[in-house]
Amino acid sequence: MSLLRQALLSPQSVAIVGQSNDAAKTAGRPLKYLRQAGFAGRIYPVNPGRESVLGERAWPSLASLPEAPDHAYIVTPTDAAVEAVAECGQRGVKVATVLADGFAEAGAQGAARLARLRDICARTGLRLVGPSSLGVVDLRAKAMLTANAAFDEKDLPVGRIFAVSHSGSMIGALLSRGKARGLGFAGLVSVGNEADLSLGEICAATLDDADIDGYMLFLETMRNTDALRRFAIAAAERGKPVIAYKLGRSLAARELAVSHTGALAGEDDVAEAFLAACGIARVDTLDGLIEGLPLLARVPPRQSGARRASVGVVTTTGGGATMVVDPLSLRGLAIEPPSAATLARLAAAGIKVQPARLVDLTTAGTRYDVMKAALDILTTAPEFDLVLAVVGSSARFHPELAVKPIIDSAGADKPIAAYLTPDAPQALAALAAAGVPSFHTPEACADAIAAALRRRPPRPLLAVDPTASWPGSSRPSTSSAPGTQQGVDARVKPGHDASRDGRLLDELAACQLMQRLGIACAPTVALDAGITQAPVLPFPYPVAVKALSAEIAHKTEVGGVVLGIADSDALLAAISKIRESVAARAPDIRIDRVLVQPMLSGLSEVLVGYRIDRDVGPLVIVAAGGVFTEIYRDRSLRLAPVDLATARAMIAEVRGFKPLDGYRGMPRGDLDALAHAIVALSQFATMNDPPVAEAEINPLLVLPAGQGVVAVDALVKLMV
Amino acid sequence: MSLLRQALLSPQSVAIVGQSNDAAKTAGRPLKYLRQAGFAGRIYPVNPGRESVLGERAWPSLASLPEAPDHAYIVTPTDAAVEAVAECGQRGVKVATVLADGFAEAGAQGAARLARLRDICARTGLRLVGPSSLGVVDLRAKAMLTANAAFDEKDLPVGRIFAVSHSGSMIGALLSRGKARGLGFAGLVSVGNEADLSLGEICAATLDDADIDGYMLFLETMRNTDALRRFAIAAAERGKPVIAYKLGRSLAARELAVSHTGALAGEDDVAEAFLAACGIARVDTLDGLIEGLPLLARVPPRQSGARRASVGVVTTTGGGATMVVDPLSLRGLAIEPPSAATLARLAAAGIKVQPARLVDLTTAGTRYDVMKAALDILTTAPEFDLVLAVVGSSARFHPELAVKPIIDSAGADKPIAAYLTPDAPQALAALAAAGVPSFHTPEACADAIAAALRRRPPRPLLAVDPTASWPGSSRPSTSSAPGTQQGVDARVKPGHDASRDGRLLDELAACQLMQRLGIACAPTVALDAGITQAPVLPFPYPVAVKALSAEIAHKTEVGGVVLGIADSDALLAAISKIRESVAARAPDIRIDRVLVQPMLSGLSEVLVGYRIDRDVGPLVIVAAGGVFTEIYRDRSLRLAPVDLATARAMIAEVRGFKPLDGYRGMPRGDLDALAHAIVALSQFATMNDPPVAEAEINPLLVLPAGQGVVAVDALVKLMV
Repeated sequence: MSLLRQALLSPQSVAIVGQSNDAAKTAGRPLKYLRQAGFAGRIYPVNPGRESVLGERAWPSLASLPEAPDHAYIVTPTDAAVEAVAECGQRGVKVATVLADGFAEAGAQGAARLARLRDICARTGLRLVGPSSLGVVDLRAKAMLTANAAFDEKDLPVGRIFAVSHSGSMIGALLSRGKARGLGFAGLVSVGNEADLSLGEICAATLDDADIDGYMLFLETMRNTDALRRFAIAAAERGKPVIAYKLGRSLAARELAVSHTGALAGEDDVAEAFLAACGIARVDTLDGLIEGLPLLARVPPRQSGARRASVGVVTTTGGGATMVVDPLSLRGLAIEPPSAATLARLAAAGIKVQPARLVDLTTAGTRYDVMKAALDILTTAPEFDLVLAVVGSSARFHPELAVKPIIDSAGADKPIAAYLTPDAPQALAALAAAGVPSFHTPEACADAIAAALRRRPPRPLLAVDPTASWPGSSRPSTSSAPGTQQGVDARVKPGHDASRDGRLLDELAACQLMQRLGIACAPTVALDAGITQAPVLPFPYPVAVKALSAEIAHKTEVGGVVLGIADSDALLAAISKIRESVAARAPDIRIDRVLVQPMLSGLSEVLVGYRIDRDVGPLVIVAAGGVFTEIYRDRSLRLAPVDLATARAMIAEVRGFKPLDGYRGMPRGDLDALAHAIVALSQFATMNDPPVAEAEINPLLVLPAGQGVVAVDALVKLMV
Repeated sequence: MSLLRQALLSPQSVAIVGQSNDAAKTAGRPLKYLRQAGFAGRIYPVNPGRESVLGERAWPSLASLPEAPDHAYIVTPTDAAVEAVAECGQRGVKVATVLADGFAEAGAQGAARLARLRDICARTGLRLVGPSSLGVVDLRAKAMLTANAAFDEKDLPVGRIFAVSHSGSMIGALLSRGKARGLGFAGLVSVGNEADLSLGEICAATLDDADIDGYMLFLETMRNTDALRRFAIAAAERGKPVIAYKLGRSLAARELAVSHTGALAGEDDVAEAFLAACGIARVDTLDGLIEGLPLLARVPPRQSGARRASVGVVTTTGGGATMVVDPLSLRGLAIEPPSAATLARLAAAGIKVQPARLVDLTTAGTRYDVMKAALDILTTAPEFDLVLAVVGSSARFHPELAVKPIIDSAGADKPIAAYLTPDAPQALAALAAAGVPSFHTPEACADAIAAALRRRPPRPLLAVDPTASWPGSSRPSTSSAPGTQQGVDARVKPGHDASRDGRLLDELAACQLMQRLGIACAPTVALDAGITQAPVLPFPYPVAVKALSAEIAHKTEVGGVVLGIADSDALLAAISKIRESVAARAPDIRIDRVLVQPMLSGLSEVLVGYRIDRDVGPLVIVAAGGVFTEIYRDRSLRLAPVDLATARAMIAEVRGFKPLDGYRGMPRGDLDALAHAIVALSQFATMNDPPVAEAEINPLLVLPAGQGVVAVDALVKLMV
């Protein structure tokens, strides 16, 4: 057992700093709970104002204790808590957990307090949970270091699940709601602000605990994702599933997370991609979180090359089963009808069903032998990855009819998930006891099935070679540009510092970089903006002309683009107009050169992007182009880099690409080339000399199948 | 009490036709349940094969009974059931309920059986529930005419809710799940195939039952919508809320409804629009259905002109509250921060909260006085329509802290909805007893709040004057066409019968009709397709030319359209090409004339449509134009006709119209004219001479604000 895990969860001695004499108060609860549970270690209540608390000796300070306790729970107000943490550091306490708020969510003053806590940890080796932690509980060790009001009972059910939550309240919700379902926990931790110990580190400390089978995470934000990802990878190696509920599908909820946790609000699909890359099953419902782990234990992560998952359904109630099928289908899961061979086997067993997507035995088929035979056939049918069994009213008083056969099929090769339409607590308990994943609501059932069947093995951590440079012989700022071969001077000047966060390359350098990655770019000629006679261009009119500057990220916004130029006179006029527009709208930027490109068109314009996300690291994005990208939020993203199969999966997720895929007889686009472009752009994640912070091709023209894709505009921002 | 209601729910005498001697069998249950419940009326088990069943005298036939029973439950197999219904008709039974399946879902043979049942009803006055009905139950009258296995218990909780379901199994699910929440029912009916008595008629029969407060519907399909709508309107008049769960959000679920009920699968947004027009609150979760009625009772339907509904949130747990806020926001409900005035009142009461979207008292604020003061202020704040109170772990063992204040606020002016994060059955029971709507899951809470706040008063039934004709002096087939005033012969020939379902008008007649409704059409000239010299057109080139035929609904599919014609020679060539294409692809259709229009463009092309939906009647639809309409399912529809406010609401629902509304500085489109066009097209619902089955303008060009909209192509299909 690691030292951290021992002090955190199985302390031999604990101090409660600020323990109150009033057990009804928040600060009075920890001692009460510890005694109530029968904690066997040494307990030191610390309260300088009293001789005793709740009938026990109170110690005046940490310094006065006869030993340095393994774990101190600090339940004093904010400022006193900071001092207590300092004393913990001095006294040699191993782990301190801090209840008080007034840190991450409390502006500059809170940030200063946080910095102080981190400094103490760094100097003394103290590890800290919180602040704003409602506590750390190990039900096996009876270590009830919590002030959560829901822990105020004896005989809390010990189980094999470890629950960790950003929300302190939710550890009480998970505990009590779990208990109502007969579900027990090994431990529960409220991680608070994660000033020192992150959620991922706390989970990781328990990885080798043989009595923990799986992890239940309640997330309000994406924070310390590196530790979370390392933990998730290690958990997957040990076959321990991780299930997560993350708040923030809606913008309003993400804003709330900001206001009440002080965390920053990322985009939800970024969190989704991150959790998926970690092999963490994300659910959308609270019941799905509480009830989902047994199903994950039965459904191993599916390799990304695997065929689309398919669910077979057997039921005694068509309407009841459809309540699960409906949300499952909305989550993109396929409910497949039995194959002809399976239907034949059903018929041979005397089970006559209509050839539909579900095997509906109807009320008349509510008999042990019928249901058992149907389950035996479906769980051995090769077309299904999982069998959903939905039982109607008989489950309430006659589980021997249609629930017992499910229990007797618990050992089948295929996992079975069960939903019972009536209130049937005894039948649910029997299913749970037999290890059959079962659910209280149709929505939680669908939620957990979808999460389980979507789960993939975690992606390995990316090993970035810090010296790996971009393809090609040299750095872009000193190399020749795409237009050079056409005999026009196109030497690239190094871009200026264009924004606080990075250094923008000009478009010519950006395009050149794309070409090195293997992405075709539109023919481009750079011209001196002061020319008075237009050169012969290596492509026909009409053309487009654009301001060339590393200081302008969005050229159209400053009048830096003119399209559809018909001839050389119009070209000169357009160059003048661009100089004037930019001079008027961005007086600080001088336009020395412009780019000229032929007017190109493809079947579709798409956006491909790369960026290093603040929360989760390198990402690659593909989206339908134009204004509808934003309106329909129609995009797909993954942690970068990606392989070709992943790029193809991303393309399949963008609905706006359907017309490129032969929809309604429309001409097919070169989606294969698009996939290669996504893969290429995602390679920025593996290159570090110099490191790219952001890159975007918008638009990338998709040409007819076989003709490739062409980048028409590109933006690249270096990290420094 | 109506005779139907009396015989259906409060029969003085019942027969169980096919009652088995084995109480474990489906056909053995009704007699067992009736006796178990203590039904006080006369019971006649009918079983020709036995002297006695379950220890009671068995009668050989309906004819042998000493009286005609009020209500016969027929639990025999299919063919015997048809004969039993015939005997019921002969014997003068008032209501028969049929358990057997083998009707609507059983092809031609089933359809013949259904026809026989309907014929018996028509001839004898017998009213029928089912077939495929698991029964009819009135818990007050202890009339347990059901074979549903979940009714096998004593002391079922009597309440004031009437539940009606397409699914027979679900009446057991609602009963038992309701019981687990302390919720009772007045009655429950499984309506089966609705061969005679429809779901709406059965509900309507109970409207004047003073002991029924609200209705809970479980719908698998939209069927007999006229009766459902009449019932819903009458229920609204009596202030009795109706809540509905309807399967079929997903296509897969709609297909299942087809296979297991024999009903046809309509589109889900059509059902959504219909239920909304009925003032029925539709929920998406089973728990939302079971738990939602108390909230509906507190939230009256909102007038359609009312401002967007706003929810105020007070909580002791930010994370817990956000679990409700997240799905609420995804449903489009606004969670508003308190106004400055409300924040000032909170501050004056000593409640200091961060100015965020929710009033987060935090765990530290888990005190009666704090929560009560916050509730008093929020329930009197004018900015909120509803207050959501979310209580954390204290709710489990200390409801006196933060749950009691909610109970004590039950009489507040604004409705309060409560969600408790831990398992807290006592606190939930206390809330329910006090009449505070409360919920077991955050998802059901959000679902019910959204359904309640979206609910509108039902639209009155449309009174169609069967003689009302279209605007203008005469029927379109004999009137002059839009092109006439330009001096070109444009006399319209009556359209041919173009499809099995109706009679298509040709485009000229269709456009003329649109103009009569006040919708501007593109200038149009009709030309003889045999011309050898092009006339002078009243508009400049380039032009478009289209085949003119009432036999072609989709001209492009037969090569009937040529765009961008530059001059008169090209026009003649285009006409030839169209004749050849149509001759090749649709040899039966002769093209005598073509239409010529100028090439027009607007800011956007949209689709506006009208149709008489098979399930719900006249509908008006507006959608973003082009292929993305289908890909993103981006459309809005309502029962027709609609007023201007409704048309504007429809426009606001189509995401693809955002660019027309000043999005990102794009030029504004004439959405006002679009709204008027929607209103105009929807007027087909009020005209009946001749009746229009379908009408579509696609595309309708939206011009810049102030410049209107222009129909470029129109299709109209008459009913006959």
